Amino acid sequence: MIAIGFDPGTARLGFGVIESDPDPQAIDFGVIVTAAEAPMATRLLQIHAAVTELITEFKPDAVAVELLYFARNVTTAMTVGQARGVVLLAAAQQGVTVAEYAPSEVKHAIVGYGKADKRQIQEMVQIMLGLESLPKPDDAADALAVAICHAQVAPFRARVEMSRG
Amino acid sequence: MIAIGFDPGTARLGFGVIESDPDPQAIDFGVIVTAAEAPMATRLLQIHAAVTELITEFKPDAVAVELLYFARNVTTAMTVGQARGVVLLAAAQQGVTVAEYAPSEVKHAIVGYGKADKRQIQEMVQIMLGLESLPKPDDAADALAVAICHAQVAPFRARVEMSRG
Repeated sequence: MIAIGFDPGTARLGFGVIESDPDPQAIDFGVIVTAAEAPMATRLLQIHAAVTELITEFKPDAVAVELLYFARNVTTAMTVGQARGVVLLAAAQQGVTVAEYAPSEVKHAIVGYGKADKRQIQEMVQIMLGLESLPKPDDAADALAVAICHAQVAPFRARVEMSRG
Repeated sequence: MIAIGFDPGTARLGFGVIESDPDPQAIDFGVIVTAAEAPMATRLLQIHAAVTELITEFKPDAVAVELLYFARNVTTAMTVGQARGVVLLAAAQQGVTVAEYAPSEVKHAIVGYGKADKRQIQEMVQIMLGLESLPKPDDAADALAVAICHAQVAPFRARVEMSRG
């Protein structure tokens, strides 16, 4: 299964592409950076184009995004929401399933502990993906974490849903 | 000049189309409603399609959106942000200028008083557009207000920019 995780923001949007069979392997990760001086609508256009390109290139089974519960303030939350909306839209336009995970679910899936700190997450992501160093920048590491979370949780969710049917 | 104002939300997204020559006239207004039981990505897809259709139909010179400063909480702000991001994206994709206005700017443009309440705004929108009754629902009235604000402020902003050049 191929999953792309995203860590949304308008200035910087982290992405992490993993394949799991079933152990996760990093295919690609990085950050989409938009021009600070450009109008917001133009930046969202750049994000939409970049996300669409990633989906077209890697043909993921799912796009995974973290639910944001604790933004610093409503202005930040709305700005992140704008970028997040564009990511979700791009996935839906390509017919790709979108899975959303609470921060505690991501931490639990990676470290087995819902209150793990950022550094612990990054170290576990490095170990799980067999990377030579910590995945950088932070946005990309966070995106990889949510993609790994999806790869671990999705088969279980599917089984639960099947047993309901 | 034709302007479309939007009052974003994922459950309900108000829109108001006005033409000003220079007095504003309502061409169309209403609300885009998405299915509450649908996944968020699907709802954003519906919003994107509906907004794109409005822009294609009315070929506005600008899309106007209110800046949201005072959301109830970060969860609301992020949800509104997602819908807002999709509106801004749809406008940018069609090459339409996006103008953003603070709530106080909208109130000032409509009532001449930055702290006017919702009811005062709606009554002034009714009078300015020569409508027989208050524009309903509230989301549509708010969208008409930001469109009127744009029609009033934009020529002034343009002159200011020109005198700078």
